[in-house]
Amino acid sequence: MFNTIGIISKPLDPVSKGTAVELRQFLETQGIGVIDDNALIAEQADLIIVVGGDGSILNTARTFVDNNIPILGINLGRLGFLADVSVGQMFDLLSKVLTGEYTKEERSLLSCQVEQDGQLIYQSVALNDVVVNRQDALKMIEFNVYINDKFVNNQRADGLIMTTPTGSTAYALSSGGPIMHPGVNAIGLVSICPHTMSHRPLLVPGDSEIVVRIKDSSEGVSVHIDGQTSFPVAPGQVVRVRQHSSFIHLLHPQDYDYFEIIRSKLHWGSQLS
Amino acid sequence: MFNTIGIISKPLDPVSKGTAVELRQFLETQGIGVIDDNALIAEQADLIIVVGGDGSILNTARTFVDNNIPILGINLGRLGFLADVSVGQMFDLLSKVLTGEYTKEERSLLSCQVEQDGQLIYQSVALNDVVVNRQDALKMIEFNVYINDKFVNNQRADGLIMTTPTGSTAYALSSGGPIMHPGVNAIGLVSICPHTMSHRPLLVPGDSEIVVRIKDSSEGVSVHIDGQTSFPVAPGQVVRVRQHSSFIHLLHPQDYDYFEIIRSKLHWGSQLS
Amino acid sequence: MFNTIGIISKPLDPVSKGTAVELRQFLETQGIGVIDDNALIAEQADLIIVVGGDGSILNTARTFVDNNIPILGINLGRLGFLADVSVGQMFDLLSKVLTGEYTKEERSLLSCQVEQDGQLIYQSVALNDVVVNRQDALKMIEFNVYINDKFVNNQRADGLIMTTPTGSTAYALSSGGPIMHPGVNAIGLVSICPHTMSHRPLLVPGDSEIVVRIKDSSEGVSVHIDGQTSFPVAPGQVVRVRQHSSFIHLLHPQDYDYFEIIRSKLHWGSQLS
Amino acid sequence: MFNTIGIISKPLDPVSKGTAVELRQFLETQGIGVIDDNALIAEQADLIIVVGGDGSILNTARTFVDNNIPILGINLGRLGFLADVSVGQMFDLLSKVLTGEYTKEERSLLSCQVEQDGQLIYQSVALNDVVVNRQDALKMIEFNVYINDKFVNNQRADGLIMTTPTGSTAYALSSGGPIMHPGVNAIGLVSICPHTMSHRPLLVPGDSEIVVRIKDSSEGVSVHIDGQTSFPVAPGQVVRVRQHSSFIHLLHPQDYDYFEIIRSKLHWGSQLS
Repeated sequence: MFNTIGIISKPLDPVSKGTAVELRQFLETQGIGVIDDNALIAEQADLIIVVGGDGSILNTARTFVDNNIPILGINLGRLGFLADVSVGQMFDLLSKVLTGEYTKEERSLLSCQVEQDGQLIYQSVALNDVVVNRQDALKMIEFNVYINDKFVNNQRADGLIMTTPTGSTAYALSSGGPIMHPGVNAIGLVSICPHTMSHRPLLVPGDSEIVVRIKDSSEGVSVHIDGQTSFPVAPGQVVRVRQHSSFIHLLHPQDYDYFEIIRSKLHWGSQLS
Repeated sequence: MFNTIGIISKPLDPVSKGTAVELRQFLETQGIGVIDDNALIAEQADLIIVVGGDGSILNTARTFVDNNIPILGINLGRLGFLADVSVGQMFDLLSKVLTGEYTKEERSLLSCQVEQDGQLIYQSVALNDVVVNRQDALKMIEFNVYINDKFVNNQRADGLIMTTPTGSTAYALSSGGPIMHPGVNAIGLVSICPHTMSHRPLLVPGDSEIVVRIKDSSEGVSVHIDGQTSFPVAPGQVVRVRQHSSFIHLLHPQDYDYFEIIRSKLHWGSQLS
Repeated sequence: MFNTIGIISKPLDPVSKGTAVELRQFLETQGIGVIDDNALIAEQADLIIVVGGDGSILNTARTFVDNNIPILGINLGRLGFLADVSVGQMFDLLSKVLTGEYTKEERSLLSCQVEQDGQLIYQSVALNDVVVNRQDALKMIEFNVYINDKFVNNQRADGLIMTTPTGSTAYALSSGGPIMHPGVNAIGLVSICPHTMSHRPLLVPGDSEIVVRIKDSSEGVSVHIDGQTSFPVAPGQVVRVRQHSSFIHLLHPQDYDYFEIIRSKLHWGSQLS
Repeated sequence: MFNTIGIISKPLDPVSKGTAVELRQFLETQGIGVIDDNALIAEQADLIIVVGGDGSILNTARTFVDNNIPILGINLGRLGFLADVSVGQMFDLLSKVLTGEYTKEERSLLSCQVEQDGQLIYQSVALNDVVVNRQDALKMIEFNVYINDKFVNNQRADGLIMTTPTGSTAYALSSGGPIMHPGVNAIGLVSICPHTMSHRPLLVPGDSEIVVRIKDSSEGVSVHIDGQTSFPVAPGQVVRVRQHSSFIHLLHPQDYDYFEIIRSKLHWGSQLS
């Protein structure tokens, strides 16, 4: 089933490196080819195992987004929203995955472009979110939002989060957004500290094109991709966001239960007693 | 295009009745058959014009949900989310609609069943929302929520709103839910005054089946359909909600703009100045 | 220090009754008079011990609000916001309290009057909150709010909570209100499912007089006192709320820490991980 | 009544300068001395008139906080929360103010200190708010909060706002805080995008001392005063906030109505229709 598996570990983290070594031995013993070079993985791997946390999966997903290789995440301590196999269960669960016992789940991504006078000057892909944000903590920014070329509203805020369902439990949640099940085909728009009381998170269909036009008065704006990389956006430039053309696929243990992870991560059930 | 048009007006409202009479004359002058009997409308009408507000459209949509007749709403005063043609523009816009100049929009509905020991004891359809709510204002209710047979959480709250995108700007908005564009294929779950701080609105895919199981301790619970009709739900009974198998179609003027209505109704742009 | 102690237990709860009996023996052994008749307590007790939960303390506080007798709460299971001595620690902590080792804390209450044409028709006192609420779960209510005779706003909502700092962690919290430290001299106004997006909880000084005037269109409104008793309010009637003239005093163990209880009850520290 | 009046205008704003010149003429005609030098104002003025917006009043309040001179604000366009006299009404209302027809209102301020190993390294005063905030838009910060030396909680967030009632309608409102009437003697703590779902705004008594201790892992933190000036805070340093020892006094027209300004600024009454 899986003949060649790419392993991605965190180069500076001894636990991640050590786990990756154990993993390689385990897989090679079973006659599976193991590679850890990104270029080779992109060409040859039919599964990528990420040894890290959700952050490592975000990074890996962006890197291999167009290579159509499923990803399985091993967390090194606490349960992740994405990396849901613990080191302790690793060999057990992998043995099952290798025989085809797994759940495969599709996750949408966002494609982000920054444009100046119609010219593309930056593009990236996000698994969690694209955030248009101020760099200068003293000033809010001002921008117009358009959906499919229709004007939505003018906003003054600390920023705007455009989120996938995957990202709905990340920064968007801290900013007051709803939880979107990964199966929902939608993009969420969640404003950060909006300078109005009539703000609400907005959900638009997955095939929508969102344009954020930065007002001339707003200096020091950046676009952030999954909270991991950023790019400066000048006044008058445009950030264009739509669902990316390909999806990534996460492999989970067969008894994977989205709501169980949500309950565990978000401490649901913690009622006022 | 439209040979037979049903007109629905509010029987006790003279303005609605008067407008309906004018409308009938206008249509008949153009050689269009006009009917106002519900049974006939269900059989013969190829368009329903509702002379009332959003409430009248909710009611009409539920009545004719399975007859596949498009609905156009004329509001008698203020702009509605659904009834977006004003009396003043009525003849102008209808003339255009009759020649095919309109926008047709699909809206999903919710099917709601109440069950006792697996027996169906009540069913209805909602265009806005199905609300499981307490009748006794002194006591909160307790229930378990399941999505597609998976346990989601146990809640103690004043109630739970299950909303379509259409209903997301109604009661769900008052309870802190997000705005869902009608094109989003999803169902929203918004708790009313949840007795926990870790609550968030939850969006699930449109093909999800939601089950709310009332705890034995919770007396005096009702299920409310579009805020217009209700049915008592006893402890141990189950409320089952899924997207209805057919959609309704709203006709709008050709320049219909969802976000313009949202801005107008929700006073977007009212920034802190 | 305390010569005569009143014990309040829950008449229908065997655990509460049994604990009350043990408590009586313990106190009488130490030469302290114990009484359990309300009329006698009001006259003679210099301490009231409540064996129950927060609900029992609310009830007791309202009953003896003008008798200036401190109250100590013993909870029968889970920690209460108000009843913070567990049965397990009961004798230990009481021994200390009897020798003067305790923290005495003042809590404000709300006085509530319902008036018809200037005539008083109902009055009560609340330790948590006064809630003006609809009885009919299908209809929202409409009312005007005035502070010190100044018009504040017109609201359409499911209801309005007027809360003491004590009540800020009760129903007001479920409705989106802030946490108010008991030392804050203020009254909180928190709307329930307000039919507007520009709503926010409002804090006014403790010496404010709040008037809620029910609109003529709003039938089936009630005023609820601590979620324990209620009184119907007719359209045109007025609910007048101000801080009650006397306070109640809670006795706590000497190491009482408000924020520790808040952390424990509200599960603070439960971060997204 | 007022013999010497200081006028503060915005040096780079011709409208503000022009209005200040008119104002000076108007006052001098009435035999009132007018000064515009800060040092002189601090010594001699018995009233300060600010020609600008709320921002100019914040700045003026901080500058003269300990000089006990009342402040009156003239706004140059839109109504301010603080600058509530319009240019159009200016001469009319000032004529009345000069004869003693005005409302005097006390507003509390916050004193902010940054300390390193017990050494004071920065201090300032804020009329609106003290904000502990990240400078780096990619990382959230971590800190512990203490009230009167009691641990409150550990937070991971974009920042923390400590607000006066005056500031409750500014940045704190955008972050989800309640509206605090200026007469409430309290300090509000409102977290910015907290990485937890169990967060709520917290109100503590006005005489509380709040300490925010920045965790060692949090680089690039700043403290912001009224959104106008900032100071970097290193890991391990402490931000100490308490009510400032003196208040400022705002003069308003005699018919000043706090709730009228709130309604106007926050668009209250904008109900979902």
